Amino acid sequence: MVNRHMALPAGADQRLKELGIVLPSPPTPLGAYLEAVRSGQLVFLSGMLPVVDGKPQFIGRVGGELSLEDGRKAATTATLNALSATKALLGSLDYVTRVTRLGVFIATEDDFRGHPKVADAASEVLASVFGADKLSSRVVLGVASLPLGVPIELELVVEVEPGDQHRA
Amino acid sequence: MVNRHMALPAGADQRLKELGIVLPSPPTPLGAYLEAVRSGQLVFLSGMLPVVDGKPQFIGRVGGELSLEDGRKAATTATLNALSATKALLGSLDYVTRVTRLGVFIATEDDFRGHPKVADAASEVLASVFGADKLSSRVVLGVASLPLGVPIELELVVEVEPGDQHRA
Amino acid sequence: MVNRHMALPAGADQRLKELGIVLPSPPTPLGAYLEAVRSGQLVFLSGMLPVVDGKPQFIGRVGGELSLEDGRKAATTATLNALSATKALLGSLDYVTRVTRLGVFIATEDDFRGHPKVADAASEVLASVFGADKLSSRVVLGVASLPLGVPIELELVVEVEPGDQHRA
Repeated sequence: MVNRHMALPAGADQRLKELGIVLPSPPTPLGAYLEAVRSGQLVFLSGMLPVVDGKPQFIGRVGGELSLEDGRKAATTATLNALSATKALLGSLDYVTRVTRLGVFIATEDDFRGHPKVADAASEVLASVFGADKLSSRVVLGVASLPLGVPIELELVVEVEPGDQHRA
Repeated sequence: MVNRHMALPAGADQRLKELGIVLPSPPTPLGAYLEAVRSGQLVFLSGMLPVVDGKPQFIGRVGGELSLEDGRKAATTATLNALSATKALLGSLDYVTRVTRLGVFIATEDDFRGHPKVADAASEVLASVFGADKLSSRVVLGVASLPLGVPIELELVVEVEPGDQHRA
Repeated sequence: MVNRHMALPAGADQRLKELGIVLPSPPTPLGAYLEAVRSGQLVFLSGMLPVVDGKPQFIGRVGGELSLEDGRKAATTATLNALSATKALLGSLDYVTRVTRLGVFIATEDDFRGHPKVADAASEVLASVFGADKLSSRVVLGVASLPLGVPIELELVVEVEPGDQHRA
Protein backbone atom coordinates (compact mmCIF):
# COMPACT_ATOMS: atom_id res chain seq x y z
CA MET A 1 0.00 0.00 0.00
CA VAL A 2 1.35 3.35 -1.02
CA ASN A 3 1.60 5.99 1.65
CA ARG A 4 0.18 8.97 -0.15
CA HIS A 5 2.16 11.27 2.06
CA MET A 6 5.45 9.70 1.02
CA ALA A 7 4.79 10.51 -2.63
CA LEU A 8 3.11 13.88 -2.37
CA PRO A 9 4.32 17.00 -0.65
CA ALA A 10 3.12 17.22 2.92
CA GLY A 11 0.14 19.48 3.56
CA ALA A 12 0.80 23.03 4.62
CA ASP A 13 0.03 22.34 8.29
CA GLN A 14 2.63 19.56 8.31
CA ARG A 15 5.12 21.79 6.49
CA LEU A 16 4.74 24.43 9.20
CA LYS A 17 5.66 21.81 11.80
CA GLU A 18 8.65 20.62 9.81
CA LEU A 19 9.81 24.21 9.44
CA GLY A 20 9.45 24.77 13.17
CA ILE A 21 6.98 27.58 12.59
CA VAL A 22 4.46 28.17 15.37
CA LEU A 23 1.72 30.49 14.16
CA PRO A 24 0.78 33.45 16.33
CA SER A 25 -2.82 33.97 17.48
CA PRO A 26 -4.98 35.30 14.66
CA PRO A 27 -4.89 39.08 14.34
CA THR A 28 -7.86 41.08 15.55
CA PRO A 29 -9.50 43.76 13.40
CA LEU A 30 -8.80 47.45 14.08
CA GLY A 31 -12.34 48.37 13.06
CA ALA A 32 -15.63 47.21 11.54
CA TYR A 33 -14.29 44.50 9.25
CA LEU A 34 -13.29 40.83 9.28
CA GLU A 35 -9.76 39.50 8.88
CA ALA A 36 -10.81 37.09 6.11
CA VAL A 37 -13.85 36.62 3.90
CA ARG A 38 -14.43 33.75 1.52
CA SER A 39 -16.26 34.03 -1.79
CA GLY A 40 -16.40 30.82 -3.79
CA GLN A 41 -12.92 29.35 -3.97
CA LEU A 42 -11.20 32.61 -3.10
CA VAL A 43 -10.44 33.92 0.37
CA PHE A 44 -9.80 37.66 0.58
CA LEU A 45 -7.64 38.54 3.56
CA SER A 46 -7.63 41.97 5.15
CA GLY A 47 -4.45 43.99 5.25
CA MET A 48 -2.01 42.07 7.43
CA LEU A 49 0.34 44.09 9.60
CA PRO A 50 3.61 43.31 11.40
CA VAL A 51 1.92 43.17 14.77
CA VAL A 52 3.08 40.94 17.64
CA ASP A 53 0.72 40.45 20.59
CA GLY A 54 -1.36 43.36 19.32
CA LYS A 55 1.59 45.75 19.14
CA PRO A 56 3.51 47.00 16.10
CA GLN A 57 6.83 45.19 15.76
CA PHE A 58 8.31 48.19 13.93
CA ILE A 59 7.21 51.77 13.40
CA GLY A 60 8.65 53.87 10.62
CA ARG A 61 9.60 53.92 7.00
CA VAL A 62 11.87 51.50 5.16
CA GLY A 63 14.86 53.37 3.78
CA GLY A 64 14.31 55.99 6.51
CA GLU A 65 14.28 55.09 10.22
CA LEU A 66 14.14 51.42 9.28
CA SER A 67 16.59 49.30 7.33
CA LEU A 68 15.80 46.94 4.50
CA GLU A 69 16.44 44.10 6.96
CA ASP A 70 13.86 45.57 9.38
CA GLY A 71 11.44 45.66 6.46
CA ARG A 72 12.09 42.00 5.72
CA LYS A 73 11.49 41.04 9.36
CA ALA A 74 8.26 42.99 9.33
CA ALA A 75 7.20 41.22 6.13
CA THR A 76 7.85 37.85 7.74
CA THR A 77 5.77 38.74 10.79
CA ALA A 78 2.89 40.00 8.66
CA THR A 79 3.01 36.79 6.61
CA LEU A 80 2.68 34.65 9.74
CA ASN A 81 -0.32 36.74 10.77
CA ALA A 82 -1.83 36.13 7.34
CA LEU A 83 -1.33 32.38 7.70
CA SER A 84 -2.91 32.48 11.15
CA ALA A 85 -5.94 34.41 9.89
CA THR A 86 -6.34 31.95 7.02
CA LYS A 87 -6.15 28.98 9.36
CA ALA A 88 -8.66 30.60 11.73
CA LEU A 89 -11.13 30.92 8.85
CA LEU A 90 -10.63 27.51 7.25
CA GLY A 91 -9.68 25.34 10.20
CA SER A 92 -6.60 24.04 8.37
CA LEU A 93 -4.11 25.44 5.87
CA ASP A 94 -4.33 22.11 4.05
CA TYR A 95 -7.41 23.42 2.24
CA VAL A 96 -5.30 26.11 0.59
CA THR A 97 -4.44 25.19 -2.98
CA ARG A 98 -2.27 28.25 -3.49
CA VAL A 99 -1.84 31.94 -2.76
CA THR A 100 -3.19 33.53 -5.92
CA ARG A 101 -2.18 37.11 -5.28
CA LEU A 102 0.16 38.80 -2.82
CA GLY A 103 0.00 42.56 -2.40
CA VAL A 104 2.96 44.13 -0.58
CA PHE A 105 2.59 47.74 0.50
CA ILE A 106 5.71 49.31 1.98
CA ALA A 107 5.93 52.69 3.70
CA THR A 108 9.05 54.08 2.05
CA GLU A 109 11.08 57.17 1.53
CA ASP A 110 10.49 58.56 -1.96
CA ASP A 111 13.85 57.36 -3.32
CA PHE A 112 13.61 53.80 -1.97
CA ARG A 113 14.48 51.07 -4.48
CA GLY A 114 14.61 47.85 -2.44
CA HIS A 115 10.94 46.87 -2.80
CA PRO A 116 11.53 43.40 -4.29
CA LYS A 117 13.95 42.38 -1.53
CA VAL A 118 11.49 43.36 1.19
CA ALA A 119 8.61 41.64 -0.59
CA ASP A 120 10.67 38.49 -1.11
CA ALA A 121 10.72 37.93 2.65
CA ALA A 122 6.96 37.35 2.46
CA SER A 123 7.14 35.33 -0.75
CA GLU A 124 9.82 33.08 0.71
CA VAL A 125 7.70 32.14 3.73
CA LEU A 126 4.76 31.38 1.45
CA ALA A 127 6.95 29.29 -0.87
CA SER A 128 8.30 27.29 2.06
CA VAL A 129 4.80 26.54 3.32
CA PHE A 130 2.82 26.05 0.08
CA GLY A 131 5.62 24.94 -2.24
CA ALA A 132 8.09 26.70 -4.55
CA ASP A 133 6.07 25.39 -7.51
CA LYS A 134 3.04 27.33 -6.29
CA LEU A 135 4.32 30.89 -6.22
CA SER A 136 1.77 33.71 -6.17
CA SER A 137 1.37 36.68 -8.43
CA ARG A 138 2.63 39.82 -6.70
CA VAL A 139 2.04 43.55 -6.65
CA VAL A 140 4.44 45.79 -4.69
CA LEU A 141 3.90 49.47 -3.99
CA GLY A 142 5.64 52.11 -1.90
CA VAL A 143 3.00 54.02 0.04
CA ALA A 144 2.86 57.23 2.05
CA SER A 145 1.61 55.84 5.38
CA LEU A 146 0.12 52.72 6.93
CA PRO A 147 -2.17 52.00 9.90
CA LEU A 148 -0.41 52.16 13.30
CA GLY A 149 2.66 53.61 11.55
CA VAL A 150 3.97 50.18 10.57
CA PRO A 151 6.36 49.82 7.62
CA ILE A 152 4.52 47.08 5.74
CA GLU A 153 1.07 45.73 5.00
CA LEU A 154 0.25 42.56 3.06
CA GLU A 155 -2.86 41.64 1.14
CA LEU A 156 -3.43 38.03 0.18
CA VAL A 157 -6.00 36.40 -2.06
CA VAL A 158 -5.91 32.68 -1.34
CA GLU A 159 -7.43 29.89 -3.42
CA VAL A 160 -9.04 27.03 -1.50
CA GLU A 161 -10.36 23.64 -2.51
CA PRO A 162 -13.95 23.58 -3.74
CA GLY A 163 -16.67 22.33 -1.42
CA ASP A 164 -17.72 23.08 2.11
CA GLN A 165 -15.74 20.63 4.18
CA HIS A 166 -13.78 23.49 5.69
CA ARG A 167 -15.15 25.78 8.30
CA ALA A 168 -15.62 28.97 6.27
CA MET B 1 -48.43 31.45 5.46
CA VAL B 2 -45.14 32.78 6.68
CA ASN B 3 -44.12 36.20 5.52
CA ARG B 4 -40.55 35.54 4.50
CA HIS B 5 -39.71 39.16 5.09
CA MET B 6 -40.82 39.02 8.71
CA ALA B 7 -38.32 36.30 9.48
CA LEU B 8 -35.39 37.36 7.35
CA PRO B 9 -33.52 40.63 7.39
CA ALA B 10 -34.97 43.12 4.91
CA GLY B 11 -33.18 43.38 1.60
CA ALA B 12 -30.59 46.10 1.14
CA ASP B 13 -32.90 48.34 -0.88
CA GLN B 14 -35.46 48.23 1.94
CA ARG B 15 -32.74 48.90 4.51
CA LEU B 16 -31.70 52.02 2.62
CA LYS B 17 -35.27 53.31 2.86
CA GLU B 18 -35.48 52.52 6.56
CA LEU B 19 -32.20 54.34 7.11
CA GLY B 20 -33.46 57.35 5.18
CA ILE B 21 -30.60 57.06 2.70
CA VAL B 22 -31.33 58.38 -0.78
CA LEU B 23 -28.61 57.26 -3.16
CA PRO B 24 -27.01 59.86 -5.42
CA SER B 25 -26.96 59.42 -9.20
CA PRO B 26 -24.37 56.85 -10.23
CA PRO B 27 -20.88 58.31 -10.69
CA THR B 28 -19.58 58.85 -14.21
CA PRO B 29 -16.15 57.63 -15.28
CA LEU B 30 -13.26 60.09 -15.57
CA GLY B 31 -11.82 58.16 -18.52
CA ALA B 32 -11.99 55.03 -20.65
CA TYR B 33 -13.35 52.62 -18.04
CA LEU B 34 -16.62 51.47 -16.49
CA GLU B 35 -17.73 52.10 -12.93
CA ALA B 36 -18.49 48.41 -12.34
CA VAL B 37 -17.73 45.13 -14.10
CA ARG B 38 -19.11 41.74 -13.15
CA SER B 39 -17.23 38.48 -13.50
CA GLY B 40 -19.08 35.43 -12.25
CA GLN B 41 -20.42 36.16 -8.79
CA LEU B 42 -18.04 39.05 -8.19
CA VAL B 43 -18.57 42.67 -9.13
CA PHE B 44 -15.41 44.78 -9.30
CA LEU B 45 -16.14 48.45 -8.72
CA SER B 46 -13.88 51.20 -9.96
CA GLY B 47 -12.27 53.58 -7.50
CA MET B 48 -15.09 55.49 -5.85
CA LEU B 49 -14.43 59.12 -4.97
CA PRO B 50 -16.11 61.62 -2.62
CA VAL B 51 -17.76 63.44 -5.47
CA VAL B 52 -21.13 65.20 -5.20
CA ASP B 53 -22.87 66.27 -8.41
CA GLY B 54 -19.63 65.67 -10.28
CA LYS B 55 -17.55 67.88 -7.99
CA PRO B 56 -15.08 66.89 -5.26
CA GLN B 57 -16.64 67.25 -1.83
CA PHE B 58 -13.20 67.82 -0.30
CA ILE B 59 -9.76 68.49 -1.70
CA GLY B 60 -6.65 67.87 0.34
CA ARG B 61 -4.92 65.49 2.65
CA VAL B 62 -6.27 63.95 5.85
CA GLY B 63 -4.07 65.02 8.74
CA GLY B 64 -3.05 68.07 6.69
CA GLU B 65 -5.61 70.56 5.33
CA LEU B 66 -8.39 68.16 6.23
CA SER B 67 -9.41 66.77 9.60
CA LEU B 68 -10.14 63.18 10.44
CA GLU B 69 -13.82 64.10 10.53
CA ASP B 70 -13.57 65.51 6.98
CA GLY B 71 -12.00 62.21 5.97
CA ARG B 72 -14.90 60.30 7.49
CA LYS B 73 -17.46 62.46 5.68
CA ALA B 74 -15.59 61.89 2.42
CA ALA B 75 -15.58 58.14 3.10
CA THR B 76 -19.34 58.18 3.63
CA THR B 77 -19.92 60.05 0.37
CA ALA B 78 -17.69 57.68 -1.59
CA THR B 79 -19.55 54.71 -0.09
CA LEU B 80 -22.90 56.07 -1.25
CA ASN B 81 -21.43 56.49 -4.74
CA ALA B 82 -20.27 52.87 -4.60
CA LEU B 83 -23.76 51.71 -3.64
CA SER B 84 -25.25 53.77 -6.47
CA ALA B 85 -22.83 52.31 -9.03
CA THR B 86 -23.61 48.80 -7.78
CA LYS B 87 -27.35 49.39 -8.03
CA ALA B 88 -26.95 50.88 -11.53
CA LEU B 89 -25.21 47.69 -12.65
CA LEU B 90 -27.45 45.13 -10.94
CA GLY B 91 -30.81 46.91 -10.90
CA SER B 92 -31.19 46.25 -7.16
CA LEU B 93 -28.89 46.00 -4.17
CA ASP B 94 -30.94 43.01 -3.05
CA TYR B 95 -28.79 40.82 -5.32
CA VAL B 96 -25.72 41.65 -3.23
CA THR B 97 -24.89 38.82 -0.85
CA ARG B 98 -22.03 40.74 0.74
CA VAL B 99 -19.16 43.13 0.18
CA THR B 100 -16.21 40.77 -0.04
CA ARG B 101 -13.41 43.29 -0.01
CA LEU B 102 -13.18 46.97 0.79
CA GLY B 103 -10.07 48.90 -0.17
CA VAL B 104 -9.68 52.30 1.47
CA PHE B 105 -7.01 54.59 0.07
CA ILE B 106 -6.44 57.81 1.98
CA ALA B 107 -4.30 60.75 0.89
CA THR B 108 -2.41 61.43 4.10
CA GLU B 109 0.46 63.30 5.59
CA ASP B 110 3.36 60.93 6.22
CA ASP B 111 2.83 60.78 9.99
CA PHE B 112 -0.94 60.16 9.87
CA ARG B 113 -2.17 57.38 12.14
CA GLY B 114 -5.98 57.59 12.03
CA HIS B 115 -6.53 55.28 9.03
CA PRO B 116 -8.89 52.85 10.78
CA LYS B 117 -11.19 55.62 12.03
CA VAL B 118 -11.53 57.10 8.55
CA ALA B 119 -12.08 53.67 6.98
CA ASP B 120 -14.69 52.77 9.60
CA ALA B 121 -16.97 55.49 8.23
CA ALA B 122 -17.23 53.46 5.03
CA SER B 123 -17.50 50.12 6.85
CA GLU B 124 -20.28 51.44 9.07
CA VAL B 125 -22.43 52.46 6.11
CA LEU B 126 -21.90 49.04 4.53
CA ALA B 127 -22.73 47.27 7.79
CA SER B 128 -25.93 49.26 8.19
CA VAL B 129 -27.05 48.38 4.66
CA PHE B 130 -25.87 44.77 4.29
CA GLY B 131 -25.84 43.68 7.92
CA ALA B 132 -23.31 43.74 10.74
CA ASP B 133 -22.98 39.96 10.36
CA LYS B 134 -21.73 40.43 6.80
CA LEU B 135 -18.69 42.63 7.30
CA SER B 136 -16.14 42.80 4.49
CA SER B 137 -12.44 42.17 4.52
CA ARG B 138 -10.55 45.46 4.39
CA VAL B 139 -7.26 46.90 3.19
CA VAL B 140 -6.32 50.46 4.16
CA LEU B 141 -3.40 52.42 2.75
CA GLY B 142 -2.14 55.97 3.00
CA VAL B 143 -1.27 57.16 -0.51
CA ALA B 144 0.60 60.13 -2.03
CA SER B 145 -2.16 61.55 -4.22
CA LEU B 146 -5.58 60.74 -5.63
CA PRO B 147 -7.53 61.75 -8.75
CA LEU B 148 -9.06 65.25 -8.56
CA GLY B 149 -7.09 65.87 -5.37
CA VAL B 150 -9.68 64.16 -3.20
CA PRO B 151 -8.69 62.74 0.21
CA ILE B 152 -10.15 59.24 -0.20
CA GLU B 153 -10.84 56.57 -2.77
CA LEU B 154 -12.68 53.29 -2.15
CA GLU B 155 -12.43 50.01 -4.02
CA LEU B 156 -15.14 47.41 -3.49
CA VAL B 157 -15.41 43.82 -4.61
CA VAL B 158 -19.02 42.78 -4.15
CA GLU B 159 -20.43 39.25 -4.19
CA VAL B 160 -23.79 38.77 -5.91
CA GLU B 161 -26.24 35.90 -6.09
CA PRO B 162 -25.55 33.35 -8.80
CA GLY B 163 -27.63 33.39 -11.96
CA ASP B 164 -28.60 36.04 -14.45
CA GLN B 165 -31.82 37.44 -13.07
CA HIS B 166 -30.10 40.75 -12.42
CA ARG B 167 -29.31 43.20 -15.12
CA ALA B 168 -25.51 42.83 -15.36
CA MET C 1 -21.74 29.01 -44.94
CA VAL C 2 -21.29 31.97 -42.65
CA ASN C 3 -17.76 33.00 -41.87
CA ARG C 4 -17.98 33.51 -38.15
CA HIS C 5 -15.12 35.94 -38.28
CA MET C 6 -16.93 38.22 -40.71
CA ALA C 7 -19.76 38.72 -38.29
CA LEU C 8 -17.90 38.83 -35.00
CA PRO C 9 -15.06 41.09 -33.93
CA ALA C 10 -11.69 39.57 -34.65
CA GLY C 11 -9.96 37.85 -31.75
CA ALA C 12 -7.46 39.82 -29.72
CA ASP C 13 -4.45 38.20 -31.38
CA GLN C 14 -5.77 39.24 -34.78
CA ARG C 15 -6.50 42.75 -33.49
CA LEU C 16 -2.89 43.10 -32.35
CA LYS C 17 -1.74 42.29 -35.89
CA GLU C 18 -4.18 44.74 -37.42
CA LEU C 19 -2.97 47.42 -35.03
CA GLY C 20 0.64 46.67 -35.92
CA ILE C 21 1.46 45.85 -32.31
CA VAL C 22 4.29 43.40 -31.78
CA LEU C 23 4.32 42.25 -28.17
CA PRO C 24 7.61 42.34 -26.28
CA SER C 25 9.02 39.22 -24.64
CA PRO C 26 7.14 38.40 -21.43
CA PRO C 27 8.52 40.22 -18.39
CA THR C 28 10.62 38.28 -15.90
CA PRO C 29 9.91 38.39 -12.16
CA LEU C 30 12.11 40.52 -9.89
CA GLY C 31 11.76 37.98 -7.06
CA ALA C 32 10.01 34.85 -5.80
CA TYR C 33 6.72 35.24 -7.64
CA LEU C 34 5.09 34.51 -11.00
CA GLU C 35 4.00 37.10 -13.55
CA ALA C 36 0.51 35.59 -13.82
CA VAL C 37 -1.57 33.10 -11.84
CA ARG C 38 -4.94 31.74 -12.86
CA SER C 39 -7.71 30.85 -10.46
CA GLY C 40 -10.92 29.66 -12.08
CA GLN C 41 -11.87 32.11 -14.80
CA LEU C 42 -9.72 34.90 -13.42
CA VAL C 43 -6.06 35.53 -14.15
CA PHE C 44 -4.26 37.71 -11.63
CA LEU C 45 -1.28 39.48 -13.16
CA SER C 46 1.65 40.70 -11.13
CA GLY C 47 2.52 44.39 -11.09
CA MET C 48 3.52 45.29 -14.63
CA LEU C 49 6.26 47.87 -15.05
CA PRO C 50 7.40 50.09 -17.94
CA VAL C 51 10.43 47.93 -18.60
CA VAL C 52 11.99 47.45 -22.05
CA ASP C 53 14.53 44.65 -22.50
CA GLY C 54 14.76 44.32 -18.73
CA LYS C 55 15.53 48.01 -18.18
CA PRO C 56 13.25 50.80 -16.90
CA GLN C 57 12.01 52.97 -19.75
CA PHE C 58 11.64 55.92 -17.37
CA ILE C 59 12.77 56.64 -13.83
CA GLY C 60 11.13 59.31 -11.75
CA ARG C 61 7.87 60.83 -10.72
CA VAL C 62 5.05 62.07 -12.94
CA GLY C 63 4.54 65.77 -12.33
CA GLY C 64 8.15 65.98 -11.10
CA GLU C 65 11.09 64.89 -13.31
CA LEU C 66 8.65 63.30 -15.74
CA SER C 67 5.86 64.87 -17.77
CA LEU C 68 2.32 63.62 -18.11
CA GLU C 69 3.25 62.49 -21.63
CA ASP C 70 6.17 60.45 -20.22
CA GLY C 71 3.69 58.87 -17.82
CA ARG C 72 1.41 57.95 -20.70
CA LYS C 73 4.27 56.36 -22.64
CA ALA C 74 5.24 54.39 -19.56
CA ALA C 75 1.62 53.24 -19.15
CA THR C 76 1.54 52.03 -22.74
CA THR C 77 4.76 50.06 -22.28
CA ALA C 78 3.52 48.46 -19.07
CA THR C 79 0.27 47.50 -20.82
CA LEU C 80 2.15 45.72 -23.59
CA ASN C 81 4.12 43.84 -20.96
CA ALA C 82 0.82 42.84 -19.33
CA LEU C 83 -0.52 41.55 -22.63
CA SER C 84 2.68 39.61 -23.20
CA ALA C 85 2.52 38.02 -19.73
CA THR C 86 -1.12 37.08 -20.32
CA LYS C 87 -0.33 35.51 -23.68
CA ALA C 88 2.61 33.62 -22.17
CA LEU C 89 0.27 32.10 -19.59
CA LEU C 90 -2.69 31.29 -21.83
CA GLY C 91 -1.02 30.65 -25.20
CA SER C 92 -3.37 33.11 -26.92
CA LEU C 93 -5.09 36.36 -26.01
CA ASP C 94 -8.18 35.02 -27.78
CA TYR C 95 -9.10 33.22 -24.55
CA VAL C 96 -9.49 36.57 -22.78
CA THR C 97 -13.14 37.55 -22.48
CA ARG C 98 -12.32 40.90 -20.91
CA VAL C 99 -10.06 42.78 -18.52
CA THR C 100 -12.15 42.84 -15.36
CA ARG C 101 -10.05 45.20 -13.31
CA LEU C 102 -7.20 47.56 -14.08
CA GLY C 103 -5.16 49.03 -11.24
CA VAL C 104 -2.96 51.99 -12.16
CA PHE C 105 -0.40 53.08 -9.60
CA ILE C 106 1.50 56.24 -10.44
CA ALA C 107 4.53 57.63 -8.60
CA THR C 108 3.52 61.29 -8.32
CA GLU C 109 4.33 64.53 -6.65
CA ASP C 110 1.83 65.25 -3.89
CA ASP C 111 -0.04 67.91 -5.88
CA PHE C 112 -0.38 65.88 -9.08
CA ARG C 113 -3.87 65.86 -10.63
CA GLY C 114 -3.47 64.21 -14.04
CA HIS C 115 -4.08 60.62 -12.92
CA PRO C 116 -6.95 59.86 -15.30
CA LYS C 117 -5.02 61.04 -18.37
CA VAL C 118 -2.05 58.85 -17.52
CA ALA C 119 -4.29 55.87 -16.79
CA ASP C 120 -6.22 56.36 -20.02
CA ALA C 121 -3.10 55.50 -22.00
CA ALA C 122 -3.36 51.98 -20.58
CA SER C 123 -7.14 51.80 -20.95
CA GLU C 124 -6.93 52.90 -24.58
CA VAL C 125 -4.54 50.10 -25.51
CA LEU C 126 -6.81 47.59 -23.79
CA ALA C 127 -9.89 49.00 -25.54
CA SER C 128 -8.21 48.78 -28.92
CA VAL C 129 -7.25 45.14 -28.35
CA PHE C 130 -10.30 43.78 -26.49
CA GLY C 131 -12.98 46.15 -27.75
CA ALA C 132 -14.36 49.49 -26.63
CA ASP C 133 -17.52 47.66 -25.51
CA LYS C 134 -15.46 45.65 -23.02
CA LEU C 135 -13.88 48.33 -20.87
CA SER C 136 -12.51 47.33 -17.49
CA SER C 137 -13.22 48.69 -14.06
CA ARG C 138 -10.32 50.87 -12.90
CA VAL C 139 -8.62 52.00 -9.73
CA VAL C 140 -5.99 54.75 -9.91
CA LEU C 141 -3.72 55.79 -7.05
CA GLY C 142 -0.75 58.10 -6.65
CA VAL C 143 1.93 56.28 -4.68
CA ALA C 144 5.16 57.21 -2.91
CA SER C 145 7.57 54.92 -4.76
CA LEU C 146 7.66 51.95 -7.12
CA PRO C 147 10.10 49.10 -7.77
CA LEU C 148 13.15 50.13 -9.85
CA GLY C 149 12.11 53.76 -9.47
CA VAL C 150 9.67 53.58 -12.38
CA PRO C 151 6.75 56.05 -12.62
CA ILE C 152 3.95 53.55 -13.15
CA GLU C 153 2.82 50.05 -12.25
CA LEU C 154 -0.27 48.29 -13.57
CA GLU C 155 -2.29 45.47 -12.02
CA LEU C 156 -4.71 43.55 -14.20
CA VAL C 157 -7.32 40.96 -13.35
CA VAL C 158 -8.32 39.27 -16.60
CA GLU C 159 -11.34 37.06 -17.22
CA VAL C 160 -10.81 34.04 -19.45
CA GLU C 161 -13.15 31.55 -21.07
CA PRO C 162 -14.14 28.60 -18.91
CA GLY C 163 -12.51 25.24 -19.51
CA ASP C 164 -8.95 24.02 -19.83
CA GLN C 165 -8.26 24.30 -23.54
CA HIS C 166 -5.72 27.02 -22.85
CA ARG C 167 -2.31 26.37 -21.47
CA ALA C 168 -2.68 27.72 -17.93
